[in-house]
Formats: sequence, structure tokens, C-alpha cells
Amino acid sequence: MTGHSAPRLLGAPVREGVPEHGRMPKYYAAKAQLTALLEELGEGGLLPTERELAERYGVARETLRLALRELLLEGRVRRQGRGTVVAGPKIEQPLSLSSYTEGVRRQGRLPGRRLIALERFAAEGEVAEELGIAQGDQVWHLERVLLADEERVGLESTYAPVALLPGLDDGFEPESSFYRYAKDCGLVAGGGRERIETVLATPREALLIGTPPALPMLLLHRSSWDASGRPFERVRTLYRGDRFSFSAELSAGE
Amino acid sequence: MTGHSAPRLLGAPVREGVPEHGRMPKYYAAKAQLTALLEELGEGGLLPTERELAERYGVARETLRLALRELLLEGRVRRQGRGTVVAGPKIEQPLSLSSYTEGVRRQGRLPGRRLIALERFAAEGEVAEELGIAQGDQVWHLERVLLADEERVGLESTYAPVALLPGLDDGFEPESSFYRYAKDCGLVAGGGRERIETVLATPREALLIGTPPALPMLLLHRSSWDASGRPFERVRTLYRGDRFSFSAELSAGE
Repeated sequence: MTGHSAPRLLGAPVREGVPEHGRMPKYYAAKAQLTALLEELGEGGLLPTERELAERYGVARETLRLALRELLLEGRVRRQGRGTVVAGPKIEQPLSLSSYTEGVRRQGRLPGRRLIALERFAAEGEVAEELGIAQGDQVWHLERVLLADEERVGLESTYAPVALLPGLDDGFEPESSFYRYAKDCGLVAGGGRERIETVLATPREALLIGTPPALPMLLLHRSSWDASGRPFERVRTLYRGDRFSFSAELSAGE
Repeated sequence: MTGHSAPRLLGAPVREGVPEHGRMPKYYAAKAQLTALLEELGEGGLLPTERELAERYGVARETLRLALRELLLEGRVRRQGRGTVVAGPKIEQPLSLSSYTEGVRRQGRLPGRRLIALERFAAEGEVAEELGIAQGDQVWHLERVLLADEERVGLESTYAPVALLPGLDDGFEPESSFYRYAKDCGLVAGGGRERIETVLATPREALLIGTPPALPMLLLHRSSWDASGRPFERVRTLYRGDRFSFSAELSAGE
């Protein structure tokens, strides 16, 4: 490097998670070794037992468990029966008005949905505001577990004005796409807004999705409007953080 | 509701995280009470001590700590000195080619950056591929801690071909915007691609950002190209999951 005025540190081009003071926590060293092992084994490969691994890496069982737990929370391994296997890549979901169905299918997986609740109630506060209806107007609440290859991967809550979709409880097949149904009812998607954050699942949500309670989730808030700018849905979808990532294409005009 | 063929459950319109079998875990009941208290106190309000709160809600200290820990991980409270205060809303960062600086400023906060490393090395594997250069070609690696109002909120790693920005180590002010510098060097942003996921910080990352190790982070991968389609950066930014959310506007054409 040539002369320069800015203060800087020189180091190896890639530093694998080691604090600058140079001491690598034991669990993290074990995690690095496990990561190399996952590469060798490949997707679906069965890991040796905790006891074997702890011996192999010369660490305490508790230390090995810490390392395995992080890999589990990050979706790099998963439990299968009583064993632990190397997980496949995360499902990449496009941030766009395409449906869950489309996004999952694009990854070569079989999308599915399981109905938890379909109910109508009088809209209040935020729900009424976001849907652009009066307080007390009737709204649908449709709650479904999202499946990918029969695995539970998320939980979706959709709110929609009853006035726009009066027959939802009769004509809609709850395992199918809500967007297709809305389209069949003449609601043409015009635009929307999404916001993503990471949250912890509530006990009820963890139970419905079948996740460990500490698992970080991705929560997607979506509001959509039709071609005339009239809001027609407010969606709140919780995706397993170990199974999903979200992508967006950007253009310079944005 | 009228007659219908689909199976469904009826319930209250909003169920606050309670499993269907109706037993609410004690820590979650305490969390619900704390949430109501946060509303009352408002942003910046100081919470009573753990002992006081445990007594008030009739739960064990350990149970109260579990509830507080979740609120902390979710960014709804934060530590201040030896106390705990109600946190402000998450910073909403647009998913777009606008810079970090712009996004944070839009929220009325003061953006900043602190240089950790600026180094050049011979590109290998993925880095070379994503930047569309040959293996062994020189790349910059610029690593900076992101600040909002002097608080450390993220860690950004930027990789860029040295051939496109030969003077980065001399002419670039590391506290300023990389995009503005690239623009001044004639690199006009043409488009990009972003992917978001939730991950756990490595020990080194947690140390640099000053986060508790268990805190879920949002990891943003970005690749950008110039107006002629030539890749000019590969960025990997880690944002505190308790301090950030990301938003996108969607149009039906996408």
C-alpha cells in the first residue's frame, strides 16, 4: 500500500469472526471446525454425535452444544429424528407483489398453506386506518401456516375489507392463493409497501410454526392497494429466520 | 358467518400470542404487562428495578428477567447506565441505492462511520466472481462501523475493484459516503441487487458493534453495478436487529 493519511489497521483480507485482541472463544473455534465439516458432509449429511464431536475437537460437551445451537439458529444444520443433518440453503423470497406460492415454487419447492382461522370483525385503530375504511367497518382476518415441502416455515395474517371481498368465507379455498382469489374478484394489484424486521416469535406463533422459542424470525409487514389506489389488504407474515432470506432488485431511479 | 365448506376455527380477532390451548407462559404474561407499562412510560422513560417489577407482577426475578431479555433483544427497551429505559422506534432504512447516510438522515438522526480497516488484496472465489474481475486482481476491502447519533448500530464491509477506484486509500475520507466518492470518480450507479437475512453476530462483530452476543442481526448483501452494467461493489452490512427495519415500495409491474 502507498502512503496515506487516514488511520487504518492492516490485517488478513478475511478475518473469520475473531476479535482483534486475538482470543477466539472456544465455542467459536468449535463452530469454525463444524462449519468446515458441514462443507465436507454436504446437504443432508448426518453429523456425528455430540460426544464424538466434542472428543474430536477437544472441547467440553457444553461448549460443543453452544456451537451447534448457533448453527441451528442460523439454519445451517437441522434436527432430523434424533440426529442433526446439514441443512439446505435458505429459501430466497423476492420482495415483490408476487405471491408466496410463486416465490417458493421458483426455488423448486412445493408451496402449501394450512388454515388456522378465517373470521370477520369490526375494524379498529391501525387495521381500519391501513385499510382506508371507517372504524367499525367489517374486515376479514385470514390466518394460515405457510408450508414448503410440507415443512411449516411461516405464519401469515391477512386483513381485508369485507366490502371488497364479501364472499371470502364461501368462495375461497383457504389452501390457495389469496391474490389469485382477489384477482378473480376484480381486484387488480396496483402497488404496495413492505417492511421487514427481525422479531422473536410469541409462544403461540412458535407453537403454530413448530419452531424453538429462541429462533429469530423475519416479520414482513405488507400493505397493498389496487390499480385505483384503494387499499385491499394488510398482511403480517412471520417467516422462520433460519429458512428464509429476502431479495430485491434495485434500479438507480429508486 | 354463513355456511361454508372449509374447516376453520373461530376466535377473538386479535390473540395476543397465547397458545390455542390457553395456557400463557408466566414470562409471557409478565412481558405483556411490561409492554403496557412501556406504552405508559413513553420513549426514554425509566423502568422500575427488576425487584420492584417482579413484586408488582407477582413473578420470580428469573421470570421477569426472561421477559425483559426478550424486550431487549427486540429493541423495545435498552440499557442506559445501570437502568433500563423505553427504546425509540427502529430506524427504517429504505431498500434502495440511496446510501446509509441518506436513510438515517431521513429519520432525523445523525449518521456517522468509523474506519476499522482499509486494505487491498488479491481477489479470490466469490469476491472476484461478484465483482466480475479475474481471480488475483486487486480489490479494496473497506470496513466501517456505522453510527447513528454516535451509537454503534452496524458494521459494513465494502469490496471494490482497485482498477475502478485506484486512489481510494489516498483521496477518500473514510468517514464519508463511499457512493459519493465513487460518483466523483465517475462511477454512476446503474442498478443493484440486495438480499436480507437474519444471522447471529460473530464474536468479533459483536465486539466491534458492541452488541450482546445473542442479539439477532440483519445481514444485508448488496451488489451494485454502474450505468454500463459493470459491477463496482460488493457490500455486506450487518445491522443491529433491535435498531433497524427495512422497507420497500412495490409496484405491480415488478
